Amino acid sequence: MKLHYGRMLNDKLDGQHGLPRHRLQELAQRFPAVAAEVDTRRGQGEYGFYGLGRQTEVIRGIRRFADGVGQAYDHVLVLGIGGSALGTKALLNALRPPAWNELSDEGREFFPRLTILENVDPTSMAAALRRIDPRRVLVNVISKSGGTAETLAQYLVVRAWLDQALGPDAAARHLAFTTDPAKGPLRELSQKEGIAALEIPPEVGGRFSVLTPVGLLPAALVGIDIEALVAGAATALETAGRPDLLRNPAALYSALLWAADTSQGARVHVLMPYSDRLRDFSAWFVQLWAESLGKRLDRRGQPIYAGPTPLGAVGATDQHSQVQLFMEGPFDKVVTFVRISDPGEDVRIPHRPDLPEELAYLQGHSLGELLAAEADATSAALARMGRMNATLELPRLDAETMGHLIMFMQLATGFAGVWYGVDPFDQPGVELGKRLTFAAMGRPGYQREGPVAPEAGQPADVA
Amino acid sequence: MKLHYGRMLNDKLDGQHGLPRHRLQELAQRFPAVAAEVDTRRGQGEYGFYGLGRQTEVIRGIRRFADGVGQAYDHVLVLGIGGSALGTKALLNALRPPAWNELSDEGREFFPRLTILENVDPTSMAAALRRIDPRRVLVNVISKSGGTAETLAQYLVVRAWLDQALGPDAAARHLAFTTDPAKGPLRELSQKEGIAALEIPPEVGGRFSVLTPVGLLPAALVGIDIEALVAGAATALETAGRPDLLRNPAALYSALLWAADTSQGARVHVLMPYSDRLRDFSAWFVQLWAESLGKRLDRRGQPIYAGPTPLGAVGATDQHSQVQLFMEGPFDKVVTFVRISDPGEDVRIPHRPDLPEELAYLQGHSLGELLAAEADATSAALARMGRMNATLELPRLDAETMGHLIMFMQLATGFAGVWYGVDPFDQPGVELGKRLTFAAMGRPGYQREGPVAPEAGQPADVA
Repeated sequence: MKLHYGRMLNDKLDGQHGLPRHRLQELAQRFPAVAAEVDTRRGQGEYGFYGLGRQTEVIRGIRRFADGVGQAYDHVLVLGIGGSALGTKALLNALRPPAWNELSDEGREFFPRLTILENVDPTSMAAALRRIDPRRVLVNVISKSGGTAETLAQYLVVRAWLDQALGPDAAARHLAFTTDPAKGPLRELSQKEGIAALEIPPEVGGRFSVLTPVGLLPAALVGIDIEALVAGAATALETAGRPDLLRNPAALYSALLWAADTSQGARVHVLMPYSDRLRDFSAWFVQLWAESLGKRLDRRGQPIYAGPTPLGAVGATDQHSQVQLFMEGPFDKVVTFVRISDPGEDVRIPHRPDLPEELAYLQGHSLGELLAAEADATSAALARMGRMNATLELPRLDAETMGHLIMFMQLATGFAGVWYGVDPFDQPGVELGKRLTFAAMGRPGYQREGPVAPEAGQPADVA
Repeated sequence: MKLHYGRMLNDKLDGQHGLPRHRLQELAQRFPAVAAEVDTRRGQGEYGFYGLGRQTEVIRGIRRFADGVGQAYDHVLVLGIGGSALGTKALLNALRPPAWNELSDEGREFFPRLTILENVDPTSMAAALRRIDPRRVLVNVISKSGGTAETLAQYLVVRAWLDQALGPDAAARHLAFTTDPAKGPLRELSQKEGIAALEIPPEVGGRFSVLTPVGLLPAALVGIDIEALVAGAATALETAGRPDLLRNPAALYSALLWAADTSQGARVHVLMPYSDRLRDFSAWFVQLWAESLGKRLDRRGQPIYAGPTPLGAVGATDQHSQVQLFMEGPFDKVVTFVRISDPGEDVRIPHRPDLPEELAYLQGHSLGELLAAEADATSAALARMGRMNATLELPRLDAETMGHLIMFMQLATGFAGVWYGVDPFDQPGVELGKRLTFAAMGRPGYQREGPVAPEAGQPADVA
């Protein structure tokens, strides 16, 4: 994987915007201190995801499950939210054929369908339970704490549906939990009822957990090569140890985005892969970047209100949606393209007689060539308009490069935490909303949080 | 539909952030001039979408097509990009059951499946052509100009596939174009080959066209009530004529977002419906808001570099992804929630013996109640953290309220063009990228645009 970063620099833009080239040297000089802080914190038990490059035992366990019990099911239903859902969606999107669930058994090579419920929307739940046959489903309930409100509410609904269709004993055999090794409601239930339960390493946070059993189990069940995923991650981890910033792509990427934000006002960080297969990867990145870096307090406890706003886009599609704004709006963005050099299967654009003159140029090219030309053109056009952009280039998209790409972004996020001076592994800002939800749901002990409806005790401003 | 806007005002936030209440009066005083400019420009032929509240003839034509020829197909394949795809995706997502294409014929009440190809990604195209039976497909090619590069490239591929399976004459009967009434390559081809062609009113721009045959034909084919869609739009148009800003929700919404951007630095405008069914509606809004308001020049031709950055989110899901940033990051956002008062089908959370104590509070509630409690709690928590937010409240989600919501956002965008002082109907910033693409594809006349590859003529900055 390569990072092309020239168009982050003002000598390759319009001369006015972008980072001055000498910033590269300054960042490189500061980098040893950044790397040292990461090392120190790793020694203190942070940055647990650095341990995910070697997982022989975990993979063996998942393989055993997937090749044994896992074979019995037509459908895998994942119940999870946030970090328990976004990574699995990204893997399915990237590494299985499009519209996986619409394919016949042959089209799926007899691997199961996969449905991910990541909300408590009753419409989605009711429709899924009508669509899926409880006799052929494996329900994978994923929650690191084991007590996530949304996921446990889903579990109660789905469990009653399984019990009713199969009886309680058989129902337990259609369940697998992925949760903390020792603590929390899901672990407790698994022990009490003899439900299969996989372990999320306690030192790996939810949004960094796709390469743990959180993502690896569903991935293995639908036939994704999880050894290759982890091997790709290991490659990214190796390069992330390089002391020279300019030869360490994940660290350099984090440094450039941080510098663009804090010195150029580029506080919106767009990720724009030129591939439909990376659409859900963008959504996964949005959580990782937003939740890790969006922080009120810095590491010393001082107010900082940090955090770039990540934005997902897909090329060429969003050239017809968001690129107008990227080209002409405020100079507050960096666009990162993701390019796949070899698209794999390509499709020729056929010749056709009597075609209107203005379309003739398309003929004889392939869709892959058009897509690549559009990626080049959009990057070049942004540069001419003085807009910073960078390109991540993958040789091809498969399990290994996907594992590499995922770990690359996790590493960049870990480095970015140091550049920004914030803790990339907590999420204190969501606690208040949880407490107010408990209050609204009547959970004992939370009554004093007070009413939450917009009108409560105040004149209604309604139009 | 109601707009709750109290939490845009500093007296309902933390006293520090948000708009001062007297801004409401100032905006209301300025509004007659804004409304007058819209009226004047309508008289000059702009704002064509105001005419979409009454379309008796158009609806009759589409109904005739859908109830006649349309019945013969199992699958509708839409080829389009940007405004030719996003609205149709939003309609399908909102108004048909989840996972529509995974349902059996009975589950779909014998309406066809619907696939929308909105990119030139060869993987997506190849997979679609393997999955879909050419003998049972209607291909709807949508391009306002009739010459959109991506869409026409798709057409050439799909046309060859149809020709090969069915022969050229039969192939023509599996095609319907939606394009300009008189001009462009698609219109030309339709006349030459006798292909059915529907009309996009010339005065309605692509991103404002979902309630024209662009969205109405595919919607009608899958059984959506298009009369109700248009009736809902008509209701929104009526209220948008009110001269009092505080009684004109679309105008007030545009005024509040503009004021929040330009006087409070809230340049990121998040749309966060609490419904899986409105996920694609958010993506549709992103194009509408980004492409309409992101402009280098104002109406007088002076550089302005305007444009808020729209961001799509879904509740409760994104509470576990983006809300940490919204709560604790920079004070640069407004979050607009969309709430559906009556979720329709709701799902009880069943009681269960031996449940861990900490989960007991969930029991006896419904998923709909939990979702509503989370929406209330998130809005209240944002307010306590000094974060501006507003709520659009729909009584229920059906074709009529969806038509209303779509037209509400179009109207708000039209008003916002005046507040920002930009032309909301052009997109000059995408032309350069198109020219560079033509150059890269070897289209005659574009060679002088020059090379576009990142390395061209310069040292490669690659890590």
